[in-house]
Amino acid sequence: MGKYSVTFYPDDVAVQVDEGVSLFQAASMAGIELKSTCGNEGTCGRCAIKVKQGKVRAQDGNLSPRLRRTGHVLACRTFVAGNVVVEIPKDSRLDEHQVLLETNIQKSQLLAEKQIDLLEGFEFKPLCRKVYLELSPPTKEENTSDWVRLRTELKKHVDGELHINLGNLKVLAETLRLGEWTVTVTLACHNGLVEVVHLEPGRSERLAYGLAIDIGTTTVVVYLVDMHTGAVIDKAGTYNKQARFGDDVISRMIYATSEPNGLTMLHQAVIGTLNQLAEKLLTRNGISPQDVHVAVSAGNTTMAHLFLGLPPKYIRLDPYIPTATDFPPVKAHELGININPNAWVLNFPAVASYVGGDIVSGALVTRITHSEQLTLFIDIGTNGEMVLGNKDWLISCACSAGPAFEGGGITFGMRAMKGAIERVEIDPRTYEVEVKTIGGYRPIGICGSGLIDCIAKLRRVGLIDRTGKFHTDKEVPRLRRTDEDVEFVLVWGQETECGKDIVLTEADIKNLIRSKGAVFAGIQSLLKTVQLDVNAIDRILIAGGFGNYLNVSDSVEIGLLPDVSPEKYEFVGNTSVKGAQLALLSQDAFREAENLGRMMTYLELSLGTTFMDEFVSALFIPHTDLALFPSVTG
Amino acid sequence: MGKYSVTFYPDDVAVQVDEGVSLFQAASMAGIELKSTCGNEGTCGRCAIKVKQGKVRAQDGNLSPRLRRTGHVLACRTFVAGNVVVEIPKDSRLDEHQVLLETNIQKSQLLAEKQIDLLEGFEFKPLCRKVYLELSPPTKEENTSDWVRLRTELKKHVDGELHINLGNLKVLAETLRLGEWTVTVTLACHNGLVEVVHLEPGRSERLAYGLAIDIGTTTVVVYLVDMHTGAVIDKAGTYNKQARFGDDVISRMIYATSEPNGLTMLHQAVIGTLNQLAEKLLTRNGISPQDVHVAVSAGNTTMAHLFLGLPPKYIRLDPYIPTATDFPPVKAHELGININPNAWVLNFPAVASYVGGDIVSGALVTRITHSEQLTLFIDIGTNGEMVLGNKDWLISCACSAGPAFEGGGITFGMRAMKGAIERVEIDPRTYEVEVKTIGGYRPIGICGSGLIDCIAKLRRVGLIDRTGKFHTDKEVPRLRRTDEDVEFVLVWGQETECGKDIVLTEADIKNLIRSKGAVFAGIQSLLKTVQLDVNAIDRILIAGGFGNYLNVSDSVEIGLLPDVSPEKYEFVGNTSVKGAQLALLSQDAFREAENLGRMMTYLELSLGTTFMDEFVSALFIPHTDLALFPSVTG
Repeated sequence: MGKYSVTFYPDDVAVQVDEGVSLFQAASMAGIELKSTCGNEGTCGRCAIKVKQGKVRAQDGNLSPRLRRTGHVLACRTFVAGNVVVEIPKDSRLDEHQVLLETNIQKSQLLAEKQIDLLEGFEFKPLCRKVYLELSPPTKEENTSDWVRLRTELKKHVDGELHINLGNLKVLAETLRLGEWTVTVTLACHNGLVEVVHLEPGRSERLAYGLAIDIGTTTVVVYLVDMHTGAVIDKAGTYNKQARFGDDVISRMIYATSEPNGLTMLHQAVIGTLNQLAEKLLTRNGISPQDVHVAVSAGNTTMAHLFLGLPPKYIRLDPYIPTATDFPPVKAHELGININPNAWVLNFPAVASYVGGDIVSGALVTRITHSEQLTLFIDIGTNGEMVLGNKDWLISCACSAGPAFEGGGITFGMRAMKGAIERVEIDPRTYEVEVKTIGGYRPIGICGSGLIDCIAKLRRVGLIDRTGKFHTDKEVPRLRRTDEDVEFVLVWGQETECGKDIVLTEADIKNLIRSKGAVFAGIQSLLKTVQLDVNAIDRILIAGGFGNYLNVSDSVEIGLLPDVSPEKYEFVGNTSVKGAQLALLSQDAFREAENLGRMMTYLELSLGTTFMDEFVSALFIPHTDLALFPSVTG
Repeated sequence: MGKYSVTFYPDDVAVQVDEGVSLFQAASMAGIELKSTCGNEGTCGRCAIKVKQGKVRAQDGNLSPRLRRTGHVLACRTFVAGNVVVEIPKDSRLDEHQVLLETNIQKSQLLAEKQIDLLEGFEFKPLCRKVYLELSPPTKEENTSDWVRLRTELKKHVDGELHINLGNLKVLAETLRLGEWTVTVTLACHNGLVEVVHLEPGRSERLAYGLAIDIGTTTVVVYLVDMHTGAVIDKAGTYNKQARFGDDVISRMIYATSEPNGLTMLHQAVIGTLNQLAEKLLTRNGISPQDVHVAVSAGNTTMAHLFLGLPPKYIRLDPYIPTATDFPPVKAHELGININPNAWVLNFPAVASYVGGDIVSGALVTRITHSEQLTLFIDIGTNGEMVLGNKDWLISCACSAGPAFEGGGITFGMRAMKGAIERVEIDPRTYEVEVKTIGGYRPIGICGSGLIDCIAKLRRVGLIDRTGKFHTDKEVPRLRRTDEDVEFVLVWGQETECGKDIVLTEADIKNLIRSKGAVFAGIQSLLKTVQLDVNAIDRILIAGGFGNYLNVSDSVEIGLLPDVSPEKYEFVGNTSVKGAQLALLSQDAFREAENLGRMMTYLELSLGTTFMDEFVSALFIPHTDLALFPSVTG
């Protein structure tokens, strides 16, 4: 089998690859991230590239005739058969996008977040701490071993069963003598077990740090935490490098299961993402990786599996069984995380295949169970995950919202990145449109919150009916019929980045209605199961990446969210990473998370007919049953 | 720096080495083990070799003028400076020697051993066992994770906190489905913690095995144990490969501390020894290394440190402090042991720097604390270690017996190998001598038991006085004065292997008297500390390699062992490996060992004057105080 070079432009980088390697894979090896939402199945059509020179072997795939005519091929379906030169169009490149750090959240939301005093109700008992000890030097009369001497003294300072690993035992003798029988011990404490994870001679000036990690399907966010004060030193976030294997958990699971080494590649991709963030945080704060002694990670069940290298295969297959919902503590070196190799890495427990540790983390940090108030917690993304309950009970479910909220399946859909339309105003008389984009850039497409706003406005000005169909009888310049569909022009080509009209089609609207219908049906199913009415809910917490760009009145208007008093709504931001931070600072909080994971009832929506009935009723704007939306004029 | 070849004869093997490497090291690289008791310090003079050809750089060392004249050099002091051809004399080669397996023990002793019913008093609750489970397949209604499903079922069969490591969690999903929800789980259980260490689909026919390991300074012995029946499948023993770095724990500690990578080399040497034995046992019994899921090791404190890779430096230095006396459980892969990488390796706890896990193991298996009877347990080697006590209390000490019992420091001393004189008869009239050698070979030298016998007989026939001095006034052909000393010819040159007269010098006798004096002084010190008389002792257990070749009446006659009724004496063989076997079979036994380690008082003999006073009194045959030896005619 031959080795060939593949050169990429405009990057001007080349890699050596074996014959038969796909150009997608070659690009990935060259550090170039291409778009893909199908897991290299050749179906999403997003990884279009141009072969400028050289021999390739191409297979069929879903590529638009226009792109085909202009000499494009799908990178994932095109395989190296000689030395090749490739050009990568801007559109096919995975762009950096907005990642939900607290700092990205709008001011009003930040305020709401600040109201949650992170540690309230929990004692500051971090998962890791340093203890300085002065030991009595041994004598022939008092000649216990170094470890017994240290342990005896430590027992005066900590509760729990004391352990030491082989690595630290190896350096114990020299460390004690170097410090002339004074020593700084770093302890990791969890579940009644206390482990010596680091030893320093004398009184150490070095601080101990922890990482709070949110592993999202789309983004990974890391907080660097000072374990002495509990303060967040710095934050960083980026997209999950797994994105190149597919956009959602389903395509990633398929990739992990059906591709050779798929699981390893997905595992390494997320570890690589985390390492990149950790390095960035540590470098810019002048902290050594050796000083990070603990990490807590929260993510959905699939992400937790991939993070640990567990096969996610059966999460996807009926009856949807994960390998584990509680995960054993592991050491950083077992996962290849570049912090202290002995650092503990704890994972938030999950509830079921589609209600994961990120939701448990959210339920923990928002104290749902600390109050008699009935709380509905919702995290909307490709899946809508929700928890309903109070201090006595908790019930959760997950519904497949589809990719519409994240721009998938929408003609001009895109993620909430710069240039995405996020707000739409339509003049009720002229039907002229004004749009607002993220960052104020020229419009590129429309993101989830923009879509919701747009549909609410189209309905409000009477351009669509309750099923989402355009009133084509109206004479509106922006409303036009194409070969296959009816579409509404949001932005004319001369004002857009790509030069094309940005439109919303009837099919787009139908897609969004299905997504919002699924989420609302999920909420209704939870309420029906516990035989409560929507008005029984005291507060509704909107969490997660998409939630933070959501407009409540728009969302109620289209029937995505329940029609309750706006004061009951609260945006809680990235509760996944904040729960992880809380767990870092409080052993009791992590223990409570473990209890939450166990006590949370999981409602499997595919059982029985409740969900399906509710879903069908929700395929209207706002709903079949208008009584559910008294504030919305039908 | 050049690379040169070193060729060894008569082996006819060659290795490539860097310039400056010692010929000792080169031989070791070629798989040739040379004698050394000084840790390559150039002082013991045992690694003499002949350079036949080539350029070397030699340093001074302790080499006899005779050997120097015949062209010998010390391998450890001679360094490669070109291509070299070397001849290795038989005398310098580390021979295989007798290793104390039960099968090597004389018949009567075997009988005594059989009387100890290994498990008596302990429940059969092995450290590792297999459980076959039939699980209910998951459904959407009953959709807990695989691990929760397995754990729930396991809890019906085992007590304790259940854990699973990442490796097994990774294969859990496929294993359960491959076995169609039947599975064989291998569990390791210790200290209330139960870990899933292996998973097999369906009902497995494979058995689980364990290794009981005795890590002696001189020899390593391994029993291969069937964990289902507790039966010993097979046994193997060999010399500890660490021997080439020095004969006793002191020289090994010096090597570990002062040589670059010394600790690593010693660690790898003992692991290599164990791996060699394990491979031999597994291969010849057709067992896969993957089926060995647990190992228990017992050894003296220095051996335990080197086995785990812990630095032994401060064991040797006043006030003699080990890094640890109880050791964390480790995984086989952490030590590089070639069994199942997830197998647990547990180490017997030690008491102090010179009373180790081998002694605790002996105290466990001989049930010292199960009886009101006062027991004295003695293990004699380079160190004499002893325990005195009963069910209410235990006190232990260690005295430096010196190398005499193992043939060190004795002109013709040698280990108990074939050709070693082990019995001596002296005609009281003619002073003619008859010797018996191990294996009936031509005499090569004299081993510890032979020495004791010889001195007892020399005293009995009146050839030496109570201080060990020869009665040179007697006209005996075999008794002769040399330039420096007086010596007694045991075997004339024409009957020996080497052609030289095998003699015993007055200095040899003095050395042995010091050794036996130290041991007896240790016993007396223990008794004095608890204010008891020798007659209070109900039984005396003699353990360990040297003990098994010991003759009690000889030993009493020279004042090595107390003069009590012979029925009180019992040879208990290699109690170190048997205690390890017991611990494999009974979690309670291992827990008892941990308690023994903690409850055993350690008497530091270098404190106060008791030991020194006793030692001086014991430098006579049998003792200054003849009242202590009523059965011996003074």
